[in-house]
Amino acid sequence: MTDGHVERGSTRKGKVSELGESGLLSMLRDRLPKPGPGEVWAGDDTAVLSPPRGDLLFTVDTLVEGVDFDLSYSSGRDVAWKALAANASDIAAMCGRPMHAVTSLSIPRSTDLAFVEDLIAGLNHASERWGIALVGGDISEAAIIVVTIALLGSAEGAPVLRSGAKAGDSIYVTGALGGAAAGLALLRSGSERKDDAALRLKARQLRPEPRVAEALWLAGFRPTAMIDLSDGLARDLSRILDAGGLGCRVGEALIPVDPDLSTLEDMDPLAAALTGGEDLELLFTIDPANEVGIGATAPTGTALTRIGEVTEGARTIGEASLDEWRDRGWDHLR
Amino acid sequence: MTDGHVERGSTRKGKVSELGESGLLSMLRDRLPKPGPGEVWAGDDTAVLSPPRGDLLFTVDTLVEGVDFDLSYSSGRDVAWKALAANASDIAAMCGRPMHAVTSLSIPRSTDLAFVEDLIAGLNHASERWGIALVGGDISEAAIIVVTIALLGSAEGAPVLRSGAKAGDSIYVTGALGGAAAGLALLRSGSERKDDAALRLKARQLRPEPRVAEALWLAGFRPTAMIDLSDGLARDLSRILDAGGLGCRVGEALIPVDPDLSTLEDMDPLAAALTGGEDLELLFTIDPANEVGIGATAPTGTALTRIGEVTEGARTIGEASLDEWRDRGWDHLR
Repeated sequence: MTDGHVERGSTRKGKVSELGESGLLSMLRDRLPKPGPGEVWAGDDTAVLSPPRGDLLFTVDTLVEGVDFDLSYSSGRDVAWKALAANASDIAAMCGRPMHAVTSLSIPRSTDLAFVEDLIAGLNHASERWGIALVGGDISEAAIIVVTIALLGSAEGAPVLRSGAKAGDSIYVTGALGGAAAGLALLRSGSERKDDAALRLKARQLRPEPRVAEALWLAGFRPTAMIDLSDGLARDLSRILDAGGLGCRVGEALIPVDPDLSTLEDMDPLAAALTGGEDLELLFTIDPANEVGIGATAPTGTALTRIGEVTEGARTIGEASLDEWRDRGWDHLR
Repeated sequence: MTDGHVERGSTRKGKVSELGESGLLSMLRDRLPKPGPGEVWAGDDTAVLSPPRGDLLFTVDTLVEGVDFDLSYSSGRDVAWKALAANASDIAAMCGRPMHAVTSLSIPRSTDLAFVEDLIAGLNHASERWGIALVGGDISEAAIIVVTIALLGSAEGAPVLRSGAKAGDSIYVTGALGGAAAGLALLRSGSERKDDAALRLKARQLRPEPRVAEALWLAGFRPTAMIDLSDGLARDLSRILDAGGLGCRVGEALIPVDPDLSTLEDMDPLAAALTGGEDLELLFTIDPANEVGIGATAPTGTALTRIGEVTEGARTIGEASLDEWRDRGWDHLR
C-alpha cells in the first residue's frame, strides 16, 4: 500500500517452494517475539499460556485471496494488518483486551517469499500496536492464499454483549463511516488518484484501525450493548436491536459520514456509511445517566458521535426505514 | 467414508449460494450446542468463556481441499472429524484436556449444502467424542474449501513439552503406526478393496483417533517429553531429541507397525511407519523409575509400546540412522 509513509517492502527473491514448510516455519519462529518465563509460544505442539483473571474472549477471522484482498493492491503487510485488525476489533467490541493470537497461513508454492516476509513483518507491526502476542501458527499448501487468525482476549469487567440495549439508551459510533467501502471501490477501479483523500480512503480499506484503546476507556461508562461495524451501520445496528426486539430513532444528519467520501463521484456517501462494511468502528448504546463525560472525542482523539436513541417503536433513520437500508447490505456467499 | 458402519449422509439438495453467509451462519448456530449460564458461544462478536484453572493451551490447524483432503473420497463428516482430531491431538500431546474450539470455514458458493450439513454433523459428533465445546465460527467465500479450527485446552498438571527428555529415558508410542499413510495411498489409488484391512486403513486416514484419554492417563506417569505423530516417527522423534541434543537406540523390530500394512503390495511397512504422517499416535519419553504400571495397554485398550531408549550417542533405528529416515519425510510446500 502506498499511503505516503515510507515503508519498504521485502526485496527477497524466490518462491515459497524453495524453503518448504519446515523452512518457512523456521523463518516465522525466528522473526516472532519470544515468550517470558513460564510460557511457551511457537515451537511445541501447542502454546502454553497463563490464563487471564477475567472472562476469556475467543474469536476467529479469515481473509481469502480474491475475496477479502487482492494481490494487485494488497501487500503482505496489508493482509497481516487487516487479519489481525478484524480479530482485535471483535475483542474490542466486547470491551475486552486482545492478548494471544495463533495464525494459520495457507499458500501456494509459487507465492513470492517477499510476500511472506512482508506478511510476517505486518504481523509483528500490528501485534505490537494492539498489544497482541503471536503465540503459534501453522502453514499449509493451498491453491490460493488464506490467512486465518484466532485471537484470545480478556474481559476486565463484564464483557459487553450485542444484547443489553434498552429503550431510552443513546446510540453512539466511534470515528467516521463509509471510508473502508470507498477505499475498496477506489482500489478495485484501479484509480490513479494520489490526493490525500484517496490515500486516506485506501488506507481505511487496507489498514483499518480497530478501536482497542477506545473500547477499554468506554468500559468505564458501562455501555449496555456494543458491536463492531463490519457489515455496515444498518445491519450491525439491526443486530443490537434484534437482540431486545427494540426500535430506534437515528438522525440521518447525525451520522458521521467520512468527509473524504465527498471526493468520489459515483458513490452515495450516506449509502456507503450505512451499508459499507469493514469500517471496524464501534457502535454502542449507553444509558443516558452514564453519558456524562463521554464528550465528542475519546482520549485517543477518536470522534464519538451520538446518532440517536433506542426506542420501543419503529426503526428509523431520518425519514427512512432502518430495515430497508439493512436489506441493501452485501452477502458474499449469495 | 464407508467403514462398515451405518452413517447416513445429508440428502439435502441445493448449493451454498442459496442460503448465503447469513443463512449458513444461522444454520450453524441452530445446530450447535448451547452454552450454560455465564458463557456466550456463537452469536456475539466473540465467545465468552470461564478461564481454566491451569495453564491455557492454544493451537490451530487447517485442512485444505486438494491437499489435505479430496471430495472424491472425503465426506463433510470426514473433513470435520479430521480437522478437530488434528487439534485435539496437539492438546493431547501436551497431556492437556481439549476444551473450546472456534471454526473458520471457507467455501465456494457452488458447494453442496449437503456437504455443509455433513460437516456440521461431523463437528458435533467429533466434539462430543473428545469433550470439546464449539463456541464460535466464521464463514467466508473462497475458490476452494479450507477448514481451520483453533482449539483451547487446559493443562491440569505441568504441560508436557517436546523438550525434557534425558539420556536413559524409555521411548514409547501408543497404537500402531503407518496406517494413515497406507489409507491415503489406498484412497488416492481409487482402490476397490472392500476387505476389513482396507476399510480399517482408510479409516485411519479419514477418521484418525487422537489419544486424548490416553494422554490424561499418561500424565500420572510424568512423561519427560511428548509429541503427537503427525509427520512420521522418524521426524517427530528427531524433534524430541533435537530439543536436548540427544541420541537414541530404537529397536527396529519393536516398532508397532500397523498389521494391516502387510496387505499392501507396493508399500514398505517399516517406511510407512517411520515416515508416514497423520497417525496422531503419541510418542513420549519417560524416566524408567516411573515406568512401573504402564503395561502393554492403556485403560482404553490402546497399545503402549516401548520402542527403545534415549542416549547421549548416535541416533539409530536398528542398524540404520534415524536422520536418514527423517530426511525421507514429505514437505508439502517444497
